Amino acid sequence: MFITFLSDFGLQDDFVGTCHGVIKRIAPEAGIIDITHGIPPQAVLQGALVLANTLPYMPVGVHLAVVDPGVGSHRRALALRDGEGRFYIGPDNGLLLPAAERAGIAEAHELANPAYALESVSRTFHGRDLFAPAAAHLARGVEIGELGPPIDPGALVRLELPEPSFAEGVLHATMLYVDSFGNIALNLTRDDLDRVGVVPGTRIELDLSGERYYAVAARTFADARPGDVILFEDSYRNMSIAISNGDAAAMLHAVIGRPLSIRIA
Amino acid sequence: MFITFLSDFGLQDDFVGTCHGVIKRIAPEAGIIDITHGIPPQAVLQGALVLANTLPYMPVGVHLAVVDPGVGSHRRALALRDGEGRFYIGPDNGLLLPAAERAGIAEAHELANPAYALESVSRTFHGRDLFAPAAAHLARGVEIGELGPPIDPGALVRLELPEPSFAEGVLHATMLYVDSFGNIALNLTRDDLDRVGVVPGTRIELDLSGERYYAVAARTFADARPGDVILFEDSYRNMSIAISNGDAAAMLHAVIGRPLSIRIA
Amino acid sequence: MFITFLSDFGLQDDFVGTCHGVIKRIAPEAGIIDITHGIPPQAVLQGALVLANTLPYMPVGVHLAVVDPGVGSHRRALALRDGEGRFYIGPDNGLLLPAAERAGIAEAHELANPAYALESVSRTFHGRDLFAPAAAHLARGVEIGELGPPIDPGALVRLELPEPSFAEGVLHATMLYVDSFGNIALNLTRDDLDRVGVVPGTRIELDLSGERYYAVAARTFADARPGDVILFEDSYRNMSIAISNGDAAAMLHAVIGRPLSIRIA
Repeated sequence: MFITFLSDFGLQDDFVGTCHGVIKRIAPEAGIIDITHGIPPQAVLQGALVLANTLPYMPVGVHLAVVDPGVGSHRRALALRDGEGRFYIGPDNGLLLPAAERAGIAEAHELANPAYALESVSRTFHGRDLFAPAAAHLARGVEIGELGPPIDPGALVRLELPEPSFAEGVLHATMLYVDSFGNIALNLTRDDLDRVGVVPGTRIELDLSGERYYAVAARTFADARPGDVILFEDSYRNMSIAISNGDAAAMLHAVIGRPLSIRIA
Repeated sequence: MFITFLSDFGLQDDFVGTCHGVIKRIAPEAGIIDITHGIPPQAVLQGALVLANTLPYMPVGVHLAVVDPGVGSHRRALALRDGEGRFYIGPDNGLLLPAAERAGIAEAHELANPAYALESVSRTFHGRDLFAPAAAHLARGVEIGELGPPIDPGALVRLELPEPSFAEGVLHATMLYVDSFGNIALNLTRDDLDRVGVVPGTRIELDLSGERYYAVAARTFADARPGDVILFEDSYRNMSIAISNGDAAAMLHAVIGRPLSIRIA
Repeated sequence: MFITFLSDFGLQDDFVGTCHGVIKRIAPEAGIIDITHGIPPQAVLQGALVLANTLPYMPVGVHLAVVDPGVGSHRRALALRDGEGRFYIGPDNGLLLPAAERAGIAEAHELANPAYALESVSRTFHGRDLFAPAAAHLARGVEIGELGPPIDPGALVRLELPEPSFAEGVLHATMLYVDSFGNIALNLTRDDLDRVGVVPGTRIELDLSGERYYAVAARTFADARPGDVILFEDSYRNMSIAISNGDAAAMLHAVIGRPLSIRIA
């Protein structure tokens, strides 16, 4: 069985490699797929969205995710099972839910059985000591119910996903996250734009707390000239802002959660 | 069967991980070897040379490579087979050819059969939607002819590899690429230098459009003092310029394609 | 059998991927666990400590490590076996010993048999040409004695690990290494601090060649306010200095080997 692994650990230190070692000691046959370890430190919302976006491209298996600002505090540690038979392991801070709720959460348990953690659990590295062992035990066939007592799925911590709104000809959106090319994902789908009459080719105006930028809705970079600010549907079907041959996040001072308004120019 | 994978995707985002997921859904038994994902964005020539250089160290298998500035335009997508039984998957922009031509191209096909791509092919992420699935299907035994119609190998897009020249005691070379240590690979082999009488120990003068630097031909860094500019044969048998304990690319303002002349001092 | 792999190669170039290819050509069934390739260039001591720290989390197997400033000189290349049946491959510069000596070195050999190296061994890339092949041959069952003649374990190169000292109410320590979050590992354990009466909650003064900082001994970041300098036991049981929500290495000008004194405030 495959274990996918997403975190904010980065690849410079040994954190990811050590979790791989822990998994392979417990479940030598499990294949590990590293989705990414480049989630910005403690960016739970970005981690949650990347996990949900990439999930359909991953084999059904155990989905381990660790973006965990609350490590060492009293946040719970979770094992979930969804309606498709996928398992999820990670902290109870909302990280797992946008992915796990795609097919509905069938079962939720708290990781509480020390038999499925390392012998000594540190205060600062639950990825290694708690989450990786739990994922590995699931992968080798341990029943999810063995990991700890059931939790009501309704009681799990949920992230607030900002909703777009439309008023007086202006679409009010929020920056969700930024990739390494400086592209900015918004809380908008193509349907939201269709509803307000923005289609590929439409010239629009972006308003960021008073700073204004002209942009154009485009199908792909090939439709824009270098330096153009474009609004396009990215490969995960989020509407995103980019600059052809440039870094939109730097130019527009992107900050996760920053509001942004879109008006037809 | 092994799939090797080279790209300019970087490791910060999920692009590489998502392609791994796509491959493992189709060919769970395939082993994946990541050659590198640190090719500078859109640096097709560097990608092509790194693929050709590293190929002899890779198991015979499917060689997936994606450095693809033309994604979303009309460039073709390719599957190749070489005389050794290696397969190659990637865009028709010259990326695959220095590697595939080592043993001669036996067969070329356009990726055109939607049965071997994902159901929905985005405009911006052919690595995930087109190339990774094709590589995975080859790895699980699909015949290359199933992927699409044959192409005349002579009609494939080829990169221009600059040739060195020698006139009036000066060897005219070109910078091919730069590694993360700042070492600069040139379009020269040891034979080119032998021909002009440069052997380890020879003092030379580098001329970069008028800026001059003294350097020395050396076998290894151990033969140079810290700060010395050296010309040495790198581990892939390219002649390269380096600075002992320094960053030659920064000091010499290295740019891919920049000409550089070498004269015996 | 698993091969773990630690180096200072970074992930931008193809060095790591090429070593993976070499291993898989020789031992296609071997699983490879990349502990980290982010050891700072030529930081042998940091590589040695990370290898020793992470070893208990790794399956018993072949432990390949390459941080090798002496490549191309006359330093020896090693294969070791420890009392637990783990194998180690790397340069004879002290890198392997803190890990290999945990369970005692049972056998040491010099890599000298060309049958277990690549056909042509370059001067600059022994990771690819010498160490990776040796690790792969061990993983597929070659006897360690086949790799080359035995060496007296007492004659291996050892790193000097600085010892802490205590005098006149001051604990004299040394910075061992820095992680990517800017946390500074010291040559101290909790026992050293217990001995001088520093327990969680104790306010202390750090003296770095005259610069003074107030800090507090803490169990975890949750016990500190943002901006506080804390002294805590990291997840590998080293005492480390960190700044809550900050970069201690930058603020304290951390340099490996820099001395630092700790006094109860």
